[in-house]
Amino acid sequence: MADSGEPICSKRKRENEANGGSEDGPGAQVSPFAGFQLQRVLGDSAREKTVFLHGKLNDETGAEKDAVVILEKTPFPADNIPDLLHGDPEPKLQMRNDVYSTYSLHPPPQLNEVKTTLIFPATEKHIKKFLRQEVFLIQETGEDYKSITLPFIESQSFSLQWVHNILEKKAEADRIVYENPSPTDGFVLLPDFKWDQKQMDNLYLIAICHIRTIKSLRDLSSEHLPLLNNILNEGLDAIRERYAINGSKLRIYVHYQPSYYHLHVHFTALSFDAPGTSVERAHLLSDVIQNLQLDSQYYQKHTMTYALRADEPLLQKFKDAGKC
Amino acid sequence: MADSGEPICSKRKRENEANGGSEDGPGAQVSPFAGFQLQRVLGDSAREKTVFLHGKLNDETGAEKDAVVILEKTPFPADNIPDLLHGDPEPKLQMRNDVYSTYSLHPPPQLNEVKTTLIFPATEKHIKKFLRQEVFLIQETGEDYKSITLPFIESQSFSLQWVHNILEKKAEADRIVYENPSPTDGFVLLPDFKWDQKQMDNLYLIAICHIRTIKSLRDLSSEHLPLLNNILNEGLDAIRERYAINGSKLRIYVHYQPSYYHLHVHFTALSFDAPGTSVERAHLLSDVIQNLQLDSQYYQKHTMTYALRADEPLLQKFKDAGKC
Repeated sequence: MADSGEPICSKRKRENEANGGSEDGPGAQVSPFAGFQLQRVLGDSAREKTVFLHGKLNDETGAEKDAVVILEKTPFPADNIPDLLHGDPEPKLQMRNDVYSTYSLHPPPQLNEVKTTLIFPATEKHIKKFLRQEVFLIQETGEDYKSITLPFIESQSFSLQWVHNILEKKAEADRIVYENPSPTDGFVLLPDFKWDQKQMDNLYLIAICHIRTIKSLRDLSSEHLPLLNNILNEGLDAIRERYAINGSKLRIYVHYQPSYYHLHVHFTALSFDAPGTSVERAHLLSDVIQNLQLDSQYYQKHTMTYALRADEPLLQKFKDAGKC
Repeated sequence: MADSGEPICSKRKRENEANGGSEDGPGAQVSPFAGFQLQRVLGDSAREKTVFLHGKLNDETGAEKDAVVILEKTPFPADNIPDLLHGDPEPKLQMRNDVYSTYSLHPPPQLNEVKTTLIFPATEKHIKKFLRQEVFLIQETGEDYKSITLPFIESQSFSLQWVHNILEKKAEADRIVYENPSPTDGFVLLPDFKWDQKQMDNLYLIAICHIRTIKSLRDLSSEHLPLLNNILNEGLDAIRERYAINGSKLRIYVHYQPSYYHLHVHFTALSFDAPGTSVERAHLLSDVIQNLQLDSQYYQKHTMTYALRADEPLLQKFKDAGKC
């Protein structure tokens, strides 16, 4: 559930269990959130209907301590859906156009639960874990790449040792699904760490090319078309053979910015809403190949759009250059 | 919002407008969901807290007709979060382990809204749209578009009446955020149906162009660059002015395939992981503009990758042509 553990607050634990286990007799239970003082909203997800809060609560000795509270609206339960539509007050019309209309509805509380998680007392690490970093969209021109991004990448000592270990069979050799050994046009295909390989629903493989001079999309030109076509065609064949999944079920793409600067291609199940598949980060290999066929210098000239978190050093470089 | 339109039920429309516009006086309004009979759950998303229902409702003549109802829990509004924690009954302890505990909470109804969309009367196509289906990736060449997709689009009687209503100010005129009235290079910008406009987290607006001859990306050429640049630049300005959100916080894109064949551009908050932003459906407007600058016929020649559900008639057309 979390990456930090505090000593168990045994006293509070015993007290609350005694209360929490019982039914809500009048006056029998003090709300665990009584006296909660909101400090700030750490983050939220409008899509998932969650919010992460940092606040203060008093512990059993009366001392004020940090708390993290996570609120998450619950999915609609299958068994009482018709009851939801008959709330009080009546649904209120908000908009109508043609056959479409929208209403605001306020179902009875017992049909509209919020799952609430309390972390108390919370450490600084808990708080940071849920603190959403603000995200900014960057428009990186070809010139920005040369003057800002490339010098930044070169100044960082991103270690690619783990990638080289894979390519040299010093690590994960038993996980390799397929290899084309050509030093210029070849690659290694293996399951991504995030895939447990237990079901096909979230299939996730990575093709890592043997050539070590391609940091990202920005380094690609038409001379790399044989490599890219090999990854596309042989990757598809290998996945069909090993997992009986065919190409119409696979999303094949590269990231820009990538998380490491050695060209690699992602293969994920189409049914899997994998992180990093959104249009501001993912570039379909099929589109990359076509763009290079149209213009060998496409990725040197193109203004690339991508998101950076507020704490990423590259964002500061763009700010320093007055570019965002 | 949808890809089909039925003739406007004028009588019902007038009746409901008379009711829906007024406050909820006792007995003044009959719930639009009165008599709703659930037929089946078409689909749901536990992650997004949405459910799609097929049911029956009586129209104003008493005739029973199909209805689609979409329920979606709303994101937590920023301004009353502390009040949420003080519901009645008290939060109920569900689990405790170390510093972590979970509770079920039932906030007061007025703090826990469900956004409800009614499509009535609904066609078979509406119902199918929300029925969960297996998904296949299509590689549509320029030739496939001409020989398979275009004849299919033309054979369908997709009604765009609701779009024309907006452009002609016959509906939703009060919702328009910005308009450039040029019949060739102009557009209307308004909030998407999916956005309740209560918080900026899930900001979602749509720019609909005035020109009626552009069905999708496939019809774009460099002659449309003025239109596209207007949408990009004036859309950004209008959103900055109205909502104080600037361009580095906005994802601006078109869909291919779109859900209706009249060119429109999506503006969503970057922080919002909106549906339809994945690389196999979304195309950044900035990329579209650059691609047209590079090659006026880019979108006539490009092999487009997109997903189709098993029940979509277009998939069958591709199968019939031996293309998937």
